[in-house]
Formats: sequence, structure tokens, C-alpha cells
Amino acid sequence: IRSKLPSVGTTIFSIMSQLSIQNKAINLGQGFPDFNPDKKLIELVNQAMLEGYNQYPQLAGFHDLLIAISEKIENLYGHRYSPETEITITSGATEALMSSILALCGTGDEVIIIEPFYDLYLPAVQLAGATPVVVAMDPPTHPNENYKINWEKIRDALSSRTRLLIINTPHNPTTMVFKNDDLNELESIVNQYGINIISDEVYEHIVFNGNPHLSMSSRPALAEKSVVISSFGKTYHVTGWKIGYCAAPKALMTEIRKVHQFAVFTVSTPMQVALSRFMGDANTYANLSSFYEEKKDYLSNQLRINTPLAPYSSEGSFFLLASYADYSDLNEYDFCHWLTTKHRVTAIPLSAFYCSPTANTSNNKLIRLCFAKNTNTLDEAIARLKCL
Amino acid sequence: IRSKLPSVGTTIFSIMSQLSIQNKAINLGQGFPDFNPDKKLIELVNQAMLEGYNQYPQLAGFHDLLIAISEKIENLYGHRYSPETEITITSGATEALMSSILALCGTGDEVIIIEPFYDLYLPAVQLAGATPVVVAMDPPTHPNENYKINWEKIRDALSSRTRLLIINTPHNPTTMVFKNDDLNELESIVNQYGINIISDEVYEHIVFNGNPHLSMSSRPALAEKSVVISSFGKTYHVTGWKIGYCAAPKALMTEIRKVHQFAVFTVSTPMQVALSRFMGDANTYANLSSFYEEKKDYLSNQLRINTPLAPYSSEGSFFLLASYADYSDLNEYDFCHWLTTKHRVTAIPLSAFYCSPTANTSNNKLIRLCFAKNTNTLDEAIARLKCL
Ligand SMILES: CSCCC(=O)C(=O)O
Ligand SMILES: CSCCC(=O)C(=O)O
Repeated sequence: IRSKLPSVGTTIFSIMSQLSIQNKAINLGQGFPDFNPDKKLIELVNQAMLEGYNQYPQLAGFHDLLIAISEKIENLYGHRYSPETEITITSGATEALMSSILALCGTGDEVIIIEPFYDLYLPAVQLAGATPVVVAMDPPTHPNENYKINWEKIRDALSSRTRLLIINTPHNPTTMVFKNDDLNELESIVNQYGINIISDEVYEHIVFNGNPHLSMSSRPALAEKSVVISSFGKTYHVTGWKIGYCAAPKALMTEIRKVHQFAVFTVSTPMQVALSRFMGDANTYANLSSFYEEKKDYLSNQLRINTPLAPYSSEGSFFLLASYADYSDLNEYDFCHWLTTKHRVTAIPLSAFYCSPTANTSNNKLIRLCFAKNTNTLDEAIARLKCL
Repeated sequence: IRSKLPSVGTTIFSIMSQLSIQNKAINLGQGFPDFNPDKKLIELVNQAMLEGYNQYPQLAGFHDLLIAISEKIENLYGHRYSPETEITITSGATEALMSSILALCGTGDEVIIIEPFYDLYLPAVQLAGATPVVVAMDPPTHPNENYKINWEKIRDALSSRTRLLIINTPHNPTTMVFKNDDLNELESIVNQYGINIISDEVYEHIVFNGNPHLSMSSRPALAEKSVVISSFGKTYHVTGWKIGYCAAPKALMTEIRKVHQFAVFTVSTPMQVALSRFMGDANTYANLSSFYEEKKDYLSNQLRINTPLAPYSSEGSFFLLASYADYSDLNEYDFCHWLTTKHRVTAIPLSAFYCSPTANTSNNKLIRLCFAKNTNTLDEAIARLKCL
């Protein structure tokens, strides 16, 4: 058997979660909450099933949910997407990313990916037949700083063959969020090169320090060139339901739907019906940033006070980075393995978000921790990390 | 925007369902039941959600469900697949097909597809970068006969570049089911050419006339070369839940999982937990053939007695073909459109399962009707078709 993805192994999130379970560790690795969604949302799924919503929905998604998303985006970011032609419900953000990438690039195209990056981007581009062009972010020099996109490097990487630029804000794993300057840079690049953007915004409702989420939908010149992707799993604490969506101008969405219909065809009807009713209800995502900011602050302070891990400031997402440079000489993979097996707390090595384990030349010995957990989970993790 | 799939439109099933809704027609087009699953299955989903099964499951699927599938296949077909390494839960059979095809063929490979065929096969092969080689079935000369695979033509199409052969039993849309002779032919081809088989067996539990389903898992020489794909949606009346699976030898499954993890990552946790408990319960699929055979006979007899449509015999699946050759000169697309808009009964033109509308040169004016409906739905359809 000739492999289409010879250098791909099992995704780091699954590997670390497996190891975590085997060691009865506290899993602060893979990004998912350890608490349940609103009881009402569960009840709405049950109700939808009993009402008979168990067969195929329309291809692009349940109409009321498409409308609810369109209204949400318009309210928050000011851009109106047509529910009929410009939004598609996907099997999580994962499928939205894969279907968009498969649809929008191919042999001979170059796709710019910014490193560190969520692991899917690279193999998805390879499966599409296009050539990934990886551009490094500038690493921070101090825990109060963050990784930054080096727009000059991005411009250097652009060519007449560049078809797509994949971006991610809030950024996993660095937690960086886009500022207005980043959007200015993007706007000028898009104007000059006419490329399309795939914007992974799954943590759009989890931005800290009172900052706004700067969606590609918030600027007309960017919206008309972008596929904007989000996740109900991250927003409503149901990562295992696998419901996300993408929004894009009709010309792009037409191509994405062609792939979507053959990639999964449609997405769980009862979950879609339930979400449409739940979203109609209220701004259920309005307090999400402060909800998670409390958890972030809590974990961050506890790490600083009680452990030798030095937390970096987190600007958004489920995650914070922490340095063990002053504590251990192990490489990041070995440190995370050791932490799971010896101290029974699981984290993800930052290097896993690079092209290869050796691509992370900044070598700052960082691990990614997920704070989307109940307080007693975080407390137990801290109790174990105190023994470091 | 340059299209990766320039000749692909919206899938015929969605187009006809839309037209059906617009015309308040009885939808015997797209293949889905119009009745609910067992109440117990719904209750099990509700229970799983309340128990907290709302976050990511393991990548390949919920372990108990993998075990239940492994046991089912071993009981029915005698082949044992490892739940750990040889079975993956997918977002419906659709995702199983797409992930398998993306994983197992690429540029320079040829993939044999047998026509008429389920619409996904061709664009999936194109997206994978491989070259589809389409081989026609022999059409029936009488309503009591069925389409047959012409193995000589398949042998003529095989070359040193052939990588995959995509087969489907029970066959959608023709309803043909494989006989022992077909498996003999397959075995000899696989031995001689070493190619892999993708076997779409979503209607494995719906075979008529007392015939067995001849799965690729039922012969060791075929099992070790095949990806076998099935669907919980078709088996448990929940097409909208989007849960299917594929089973294959480890070497193949390793490659399929690489794609699966980036195509959808995982599949709905609460539905998987519920299905694992439901399957453990009993041979819930044991009576499915007779349940659907009754519906098939009912629709078939009613069509014969009360309408000018001549039903063909159906060997399995949700479907039967019916001829209107003695009634109308319209082409199949126009006839189905007219039937939906004027008589408010929806069917699928057989020509939609060909490479192009003109590829169906047998021109026998056939439509596909889905009988997976409540009796009163079928009655209402017949009442309307009586006016033809
Ligand atoms: C889909 S894998 C796990 C979730 C996630 O986004 C992460 O941990 O980075
Ligand atoms: C996934 S599309 C609809 C179902 C089906 O298999 C068919 O109608 O042929």
C-alpha cells in the first residue's frame, strides 16, 4: 500500500488522550470541556428526536439553523451571509476545514500555513494536491508577550501560485488573537494578490482582556475573500456532537458544498434542530469569554504560585502555554510523556504544532494546557503539579 | 474560482427532495424512511447525553460500538476484524466512502466504477486525483430480470494501473445483489491483479427472496483486500444521525484513519454510545429484510394493478425500479419532474446514476422508487399515481 500521507501518524490529541486514560491522568491536553452543556440543549435534542427529526436534513443544513447563524454573524460582525447559498453546517470545524481546502486548492497551487499550526492544515492541503508553504510566527521573548505573525515573511512567501492563506484567530496553540493591524495587513495582501483566506475561528467567543474577536466577516473586503469557520462544540460544550459551520461568499460556497455533499452529505438532524432552537433563545455565547477567562486566570495563578511551570499570558481559546525551561532539560515530547506517566497530568507539546518535531527551533520548552475544565479538575491537576 | 469538480452539480437526491417539498409531493425519491427508529434507541441517546457523553470519543470510535460491530460481522459473515485496528466509525457511509477513496488512490491510479452507480463514487475518485474507469452493467431485457455485472468487461478494463474496484451490493439503484458467481469472479480478479475493493454494503440487512447478503467479509481472500462499508442510518431508520462504519485489514485501515482524522476527526459520541447499547441488546437487524420485503411487495403490486408503471423485481435495498416506457415518451428527468409537479409523487430518474444524462444508452425509461415508507404514505402515492 502506497500511503497518500506517509509522514502522518495518529493526531497528537488522540495519542495524548489515550496515554492520559491509560495513566488515569488529569487530561489538560486535548481541547474539550469536562462538563456538560446546558440541560436545556440536551432536552431539545431529545425533543427533536421524538418529534421525528431523524432523517436527512437539507444538504447545506437545517434551514432554521442556517438562519440563526446568519443572524448571529450579522449581529456580531455586521456581514450578512445568505442562509440559502453562503452558509453550510459541517461535521465539526474539522469537516469545514477539510471540505474547504479540498474544494479550493489543487495541483499547482500553493497554500500558506502559519507555524505553529493546528495539525490538520498541512495534510489537508497535501490531500488536496496543493503545495503547503509554511511561514513561521515570531516567538515571544517573554511570558507576557505572545507569538506574532510576521507579515513581512508572509509577503515574501506569496507568489503568483498562492491560492489560499490559512489563518486562525484566536490561535491554537499560541492563543494569539488578531488585532486591527493584522486585519489591515490581510486586507492589503488580499487586495494585491486576490487570494482566498480560510479563517479558522472556532474560538470566536473566547477572547480575553476585553478584546473583541476580529472575524474576517467584520470587514467587507476580507469577508468577500474568506471562508469563515466556527464550531458549536467549542461554544456550547459539546465537542462530541461534531457540529460546526462555514460561511463564505456564494461563489466559494458553491464549490465547498460540492465537496461537502460527498464528504459527509449532511450533518446530524436532531442536533441541528436543537441548536437552532437553542440559538434562537438568547445570546447564549455572550458570557463565554468571561466564563473561560476566570478559568484561565485561575489555572494561570495556581501554576505561577504552586508549580515550577511559568504560564504565558493567554489572549483567547481553551488554552494557555506554560514554560518548563527553568525546571527540566527534557524535550517537549519527553516532558509531556513524563508528566502524564509520572505526575498524571496531560499536556500537549508545543512542537506537535510544527511541521516536524525538529522544526520548532525556538526551543523554548513550552507545553499547551487546556483550562476548559471544572474547578475541581483544575485543583487536582495543580495538586499533582505541586509535586514537581 | 477554478472548480475542482466542474461537472458536479447538487446531488440529484437533494434536488428532487427540494422539488418534492415545494410541490407538497409524496417523496419516494431520496432513500430514507418516513418513520421513527425504535423509541428505545432515542431514549438511549438521551441517556448518553445526560450521563455526560458529549465530548470527543476516541478517534476510531466508541470502543463498545467497535466491539459490537466486530462481533456482528463475525457472527454474520465469519470474519473477525480487530476493534482496535480494523474498524472505524464514520460520519455515515458517505464519509467512509470518501475517506477510503481519498486514502487509497491518487494521481496515476485507475479506479473501476460500475455503471449505473451511486453518485458519490465518481467525484470522490476525481478529488483523490485518480482516474475513474467506468464499466457498464448489462441492462435487463425484461422486468423480471435485473442489471448484471459483466465481468468480462471488468476484466477488459483492468490494467496495471488499476488500484481500486468499487462495488455495491445490494446495489443502488438497480437492487441487484451479488451471487456466489460474482464473488468467484471477484476472487479471481483480486488474486490475479492484487487490487483493493471498496464494497458499499449499506443495505446489507435488506435482501429479499430469502437470499443471503454476500459480504466481502464472507470470504477470507476478499476480506483481506476489501474495505467493507455499512450504515446505521439504513439499518435503524436514522439516516439523519449520520453514523456508519468501515472495516478493513489493518494495513488499509491505518491509511483510512489518517484521512478520517482530518476529514471529520470523530463521530457523534451520544449516538455511538446509544448504538453500542442498542446493538448489544439483540439481533435488531434480523427482521429487517422481511419488514422491507413486505413494503416492496405492497408497492410493487399496487403499481402493477393500479398504475401504468411497470415495476421491476427488486432483490434488495430501499428501492425498486419501474418502467413508464408504455406510458410516456418523456426522458427520465422530464418524467420525474413532471411526476413531482403534476402528480405530486417524487421519484429519481435512473439516468442520474450514469456518468452523464446521455450515458444511459439502454434508454429503458426507468425511475427509482423508495418503498421505505409507512403504508399510508405508499397508499397516498398510489392514489395519486392512479390518475396517470
Ligand atoms: C479535534 S482535536 C482536539 C481539539 C482541539 O482543537 C485541540 O486540542 O487542539
Ligand atoms: C445520501 S443521499 C440519499 C440516500 C440514498 O442513498 C439514495 O437515495 O440513493
